[in-house]
Amino acid sequence: MVSVATKAIAAEKQAERERLVKEMEDELGLSEDHPDDQTYLLASPSEIVDNLKAHKEDWTVERVMRAWIRSACAVHRKTNALTEVLFREALGTARAMDQAYANGEAAEGEFWGLPSSFKDTYNIVGVDTSLGCSPHCFHPTETAEEEGGLVKLFRAAGGIPFCKSNIPQTLLAFECQNPVFGASTNPFDSTRVPGGSSGGEAVLVALRGTPLGWGTDVGGSLRIPAHFSGCCGLKPVLGRWPTCGSRVPTAGFEAIKTMVGPMTRSVTDLTFASKTMIGLAQKPDYLPRGEVLLPIPWREPEIPKKLRIGWWVEDDIVKTSPACSRAVQEVAQKLAKEGHEVVRWDPPEVAEALKVFAALTAADGYKSLLRNLGPDPMEPSMRLVTLGSKTPSVLRGLLVWLIGAVLKDTVFSSIFATSKPSKKISDFWAWTDRRNKYIQAFNKAAWEDHHFDMLLCPVQAVPALEHGRTKFLSPLAVTTILFNVVDSTVGVLPVTKVDRDLDATPPDFLHGSKGSWLLEKRVYGDDDPAYDADKMHGLPVGVQVVGRAWEEEKVLAMMKIVEDAVGFEAE
Amino acid sequence: MVSVATKAIAAEKQAERERLVKEMEDELGLSEDHPDDQTYLLASPSEIVDNLKAHKEDWTVERVMRAWIRSACAVHRKTNALTEVLFREALGTARAMDQAYANGEAAEGEFWGLPSSFKDTYNIVGVDTSLGCSPHCFHPTETAEEEGGLVKLFRAAGGIPFCKSNIPQTLLAFECQNPVFGASTNPFDSTRVPGGSSGGEAVLVALRGTPLGWGTDVGGSLRIPAHFSGCCGLKPVLGRWPTCGSRVPTAGFEAIKTMVGPMTRSVTDLTFASKTMIGLAQKPDYLPRGEVLLPIPWREPEIPKKLRIGWWVEDDIVKTSPACSRAVQEVAQKLAKEGHEVVRWDPPEVAEALKVFAALTAADGYKSLLRNLGPDPMEPSMRLVTLGSKTPSVLRGLLVWLIGAVLKDTVFSSIFATSKPSKKISDFWAWTDRRNKYIQAFNKAAWEDHHFDMLLCPVQAVPALEHGRTKFLSPLAVTTILFNVVDSTVGVLPVTKVDRDLDATPPDFLHGSKGSWLLEKRVYGDDDPAYDADKMHGLPVGVQVVGRAWEEEKVLAMMKIVEDAVGFEAE
Repeated sequence: MVSVATKAIAAEKQAERERLVKEMEDELGLSEDHPDDQTYLLASPSEIVDNLKAHKEDWTVERVMRAWIRSACAVHRKTNALTEVLFREALGTARAMDQAYANGEAAEGEFWGLPSSFKDTYNIVGVDTSLGCSPHCFHPTETAEEEGGLVKLFRAAGGIPFCKSNIPQTLLAFECQNPVFGASTNPFDSTRVPGGSSGGEAVLVALRGTPLGWGTDVGGSLRIPAHFSGCCGLKPVLGRWPTCGSRVPTAGFEAIKTMVGPMTRSVTDLTFASKTMIGLAQKPDYLPRGEVLLPIPWREPEIPKKLRIGWWVEDDIVKTSPACSRAVQEVAQKLAKEGHEVVRWDPPEVAEALKVFAALTAADGYKSLLRNLGPDPMEPSMRLVTLGSKTPSVLRGLLVWLIGAVLKDTVFSSIFATSKPSKKISDFWAWTDRRNKYIQAFNKAAWEDHHFDMLLCPVQAVPALEHGRTKFLSPLAVTTILFNVVDSTVGVLPVTKVDRDLDATPPDFLHGSKGSWLLEKRVYGDDDPAYDADKMHGLPVGVQVVGRAWEEEKVLAMMKIVEDAVGFEAE
Repeated sequence: MVSVATKAIAAEKQAERERLVKEMEDELGLSEDHPDDQTYLLASPSEIVDNLKAHKEDWTVERVMRAWIRSACAVHRKTNALTEVLFREALGTARAMDQAYANGEAAEGEFWGLPSSFKDTYNIVGVDTSLGCSPHCFHPTETAEEEGGLVKLFRAAGGIPFCKSNIPQTLLAFECQNPVFGASTNPFDSTRVPGGSSGGEAVLVALRGTPLGWGTDVGGSLRIPAHFSGCCGLKPVLGRWPTCGSRVPTAGFEAIKTMVGPMTRSVTDLTFASKTMIGLAQKPDYLPRGEVLLPIPWREPEIPKKLRIGWWVEDDIVKTSPACSRAVQEVAQKLAKEGHEVVRWDPPEVAEALKVFAALTAADGYKSLLRNLGPDPMEPSMRLVTLGSKTPSVLRGLLVWLIGAVLKDTVFSSIFATSKPSKKISDFWAWTDRRNKYIQAFNKAAWEDHHFDMLLCPVQAVPALEHGRTKFLSPLAVTTILFNVVDSTVGVLPVTKVDRDLDATPPDFLHGSKGSWLLEKRVYGDDDPAYDADKMHGLPVGVQVVGRAWEEEKVLAMMKIVEDAVGFEAE
């Protein structure tokens, strides 16, 4: 049951959004009626800035902005990707910049005149940061001081934030639906989710509704949408990127760190965004609200001619689908062909990382997280996640026993068992220590014992799922969660598409799998499987390119090597 | 009552230590009988390394080691500073190095041939890391792999660990006593404590029982002993120094970070030790057991000719003694005379930092911490600290009310109130968020609004206290705790000595103080005050020189400016 309060707020928020979109459509016309917009929509972010600064013929900040606003509106009509609409303000800023430029003011700033969208977790003056929760609606950010660190940097360099994009309720899901703004859909199949939590961003980027997007990632929130929707994303490690001025669902929870990062259509664009942002964050005068950033400037990376690459496709939680497995193996083969040293490798027991993640995030029984909901109904996608912690302990014990001893799914039962709320703070610290031991074991194995330059693995066991599927499949996020636990720098890029012929599930597919059969039944079983190469034909498939902490430069350079090797281009 | 188990273990540990010390005294003779040892004892760490590498006449690794072993034994006889004795192994290593050198092997490594002591929190092969707790005794570190990160680096660069030094039980006190090894005494007054928890290290450094010491700091543990015992110390911020391979009393507690750092007799030595260690930690092949260090190499600092310095002497918890206040003010005046811009400044409410520290460390009722004790009796110094969290909630409420409303000490009552165990994990996260808000407010005020290069303040309200005094005065650590909460780079150096004439307490001393009168009565009251300039005459007094995170280079350079300005030399 959706409460009256939630309904009223949602209706008002959606009406306001509709008004602001419609107003622009009326004023600027529709994207489909402006074929000349393609000049601006096909340009990369750095080309846009360069052309504007060079005052190339037909290039003004306003002209660029009109094209992107029209496109963002069209994408929104198709996918419901927008939340907060800043088109009016952005157009005003664009005009003022053109005017100032005409008056002889210099066009200064690395992002001069560039529009950009932001996930609806970043504070932007004048609009809400609601996380899709009605209690946070109609409490707009009031001062520039409170804006998101990346928003401030982007503005300081001449960029123009022009919209915010949709997320799942409280961010703790990999789909993109909430009671305030509704569901966003996958760019390539409206029956499917775009991924989450940075789902709206991924859609905008994938469908050219924005030249540059900004997401966040605490369990795969930036990487899963990049994979499901077919774009590039970078999840850095805390330190070089300001994270202040954002709403997080649980303030003070630091056992797993929430990171910010860019989302783009190509690795080149991702590198442009990253290099520019890291450079801006290092400027001596930039110290946002007391946030302390690492004094590590952008360093041109030294990439060995022969990279040492460790890759895997299985993590023994859920068997990886043929499409996602093929994506990794094709990349590995192509890199090997180019002379890199490509080694099949198994990371330390990945289930342990998932247990640590579940135990730490569930430590307070999701009490702090669920406080965001107020009167709102809980989205189905959050049910399994919060089930373990909300089940009374006797019943939970019974369930764990049932799943493990009776149903013989010890993988699932052992993970479910850890998601109980640690009633004691000493338990929480013990789990933090267990996390540290896993981190050390992983880093030692990958970087010290094996001396890998790069790790390569799937983003998730499957491509984009249908709406409603994620509610029983949240453990699938293990493949991205792993690197939030270990705290690695990770890039995602699309490398192929699902092919109904190549990627069909063979009859004996699950034979010998060590994963959770309960999950695998839902994903690959005979009865309405979540993975279906035929239905998924044409969906994008990404891979994760993993480096060490604070190796943004190296990871981006290695992503470029992958991108060049596979020669795959987003649509 | 000391349990039989504790007594037996303590007796065995002390007998073993006595045997190892006595054996060396018998074999090598006493320090007092070897006046020629002074050549080696008066040399700085870098001079020792240089002379050894240059094979200067009369300089061999063994000769140097013999001098320092004799001296360490003498200091131990005076102060009870040692815990684990590694003299025999160190002598063996020294001889082997001389032999290898004679055989034509190169003398390589930045610490080649240098002896060093380590606080008894660093793992060293073959000996215990007991934290002064009997349950940890007779469980020696078994493999080189498990050794402390700094120990490994020190060895890798040719250094020779030769002893470990005393600490207070579980480290949570600023004195230096435990049921296993007993109490260490102040280098200049055996009725006083050397400070803690890195007390034994400070004593060894101050009395030339070691050329170089290594401590740790979670609430002032490295800085208070440097102040009480008259030496220099650097508390960095997590990132550039390996901290693995140490025993911490509460594994997984990260809300306040435990840091490692060097302790020396001069700022020049401190810089040598820091620069060398940071350089070693950056070597590409050095990755200790999966610990990830920040990729920030040593950078020669650019120090503005005119430093902007913010200083204060009062934090409104306990009024600062005339001696400690004078120390700061004299430094400020001397720096002003040298042309620096010296500004009187008040940091954001310091009581808030103490509340945050108390709330976070007490969150589990010190359950994890006290688990270290096993059958051991709790040291009196830990009583007040753990009182708040161990008092039943009704009684605690009553006490808070009594102290605040009846005794009218709202400072003390408000701090006492926060030290209750947060029963809920959501409370712990809320306190973590409150910590972050304080950090941001502090950093914004100090570095953004005021653009200070350096902050200057006392290390503690008083110089070295008599044994037994700390048990009621643990809140005095607020002055150092502040920078563990904020996470700043802080150096301590001695700048003056208590002077019975200059530093006597005037009759109206406490007039107008905003501090806790309950604490101030104990420190300055008529009845047996803890602070007594007459009795304290000649004790060293230090100051804190504070910079931002990861500004080791700048803080050390500013410490050198202070050291040169005051012209104070340790004895």
